[in-house]
Amino acid sequence: MSVDAAYGARSAEYTSLFGDISSTHPDDRALVADWATQVTGPILDLGCGPGQWTGFLHGIGADVSGIDLTPEFVELARSRHPELEFEVGDARRLHRSDGSAAGVLAWYSLIHLAPDELPQALAEIHRVLRPGGALLVGFFDGDGDDVEEFAHAVAPAWFWPPDRLAEELEDRGFAVDRITRRREPGARPHAAITAHRKA
Amino acid sequence: MSVDAAYGARSAEYTSLFGDISSTHPDDRALVADWATQVTGPILDLGCGPGQWTGFLHGIGADVSGIDLTPEFVELARSRHPELEFEVGDARRLHRSDGSAAGVLAWYSLIHLAPDELPQALAEIHRVLRPGGALLVGFFDGDGDDVEEFAHAVAPAWFWPPDRLAEELEDRGFAVDRITRRREPGARPHAAITAHRKA
Repeated sequence: MSVDAAYGARSAEYTSLFGDISSTHPDDRALVADWATQVTGPILDLGCGPGQWTGFLHGIGADVSGIDLTPEFVELARSRHPELEFEVGDARRLHRSDGSAAGVLAWYSLIHLAPDELPQALAEIHRVLRPGGALLVGFFDGDGDDVEEFAHAVAPAWFWPPDRLAEELEDRGFAVDRITRRREPGARPHAAITAHRKA
Repeated sequence: MSVDAAYGARSAEYTSLFGDISSTHPDDRALVADWATQVTGPILDLGCGPGQWTGFLHGIGADVSGIDLTPEFVELARSRHPELEFEVGDARRLHRSDGSAAGVLAWYSLIHLAPDELPQALAEIHRVLRPGGALLVGFFDGDGDDVEEFAHAVAPAWFWPPDRLAEELEDRGFAVDRITRRREPGARPHAAITAHRKA
């Protein structure tokens, strides 16, 4: 089953479990908010799901819109945040013009791309970001040296060792600004990378 | 030269560079503040240097006092924060009674203990913490599997792989609650562990 179909079939369940911003980690909210307040211009929430982060970013004053592969999520996001723009779209083929975004949030969305699909998505993010534009990626922290697939509850996903993902970003014209990682008992390890598009 | 003498000789220089809370990382301030607000009772800032974190914790309403191995730092801390208590002391032999602290902040202080000295300091922290008491350790993040000494600007220090330090803590009666890590270009990798004394 494709990622969009897998999430589509379970979109209501996912939304009830994770669709509210209050179910996110307070450190993540602090990180995303801190990142967004340094972005001047439109932010794209790429892989927005039912729009929990889109709504959060809007709430702190960001100019934000959302894209998701799963039509059911886009519908839910629209109904939950009628004041915001959401559209169905694929990170590998974004319907956005070059340099149209000042920031891209990819929070636990690139995790569902097979490693050999990632470069295409990063190239697209690079294209839609203006030079100097900001990227924030949230993902499952792979502790070893290798990218590793695992059985995510909804669709296959990959653990990325932060250094490996940082390399991918550097290879695609991004400069990495910060890597943060968090591990807590009972939760999958988390990591985030902030980067920006080089000129 | 011992750690206290090394810092003593350079206490003015250190203080001018790092003695102000504004020179700390905003994420660290958020982490320390978040941690402290969950502690009810006295907090010990262990290895407080010139008192930048002691003052910060006091400023957010914590009941906090500081201990440092270096007399020059204790003098500086007292003059900068005359409303707070500071004393000269050694993490391996604390002049505090059992269970007297609700929280211990050890922010980049245990890093100067040789690995074979650490257990004694952890046992002391365990002793002065009440059951359930909170510990927050900041340290240089060792990326490999081994504890590694390096030439810190002032006194020898050790990189600790977070998992290794977490093991040391678990071995000494602490439960690890969270490991956070941060890496930025041009800075040594940072890590922090929050833990609590088991009953």
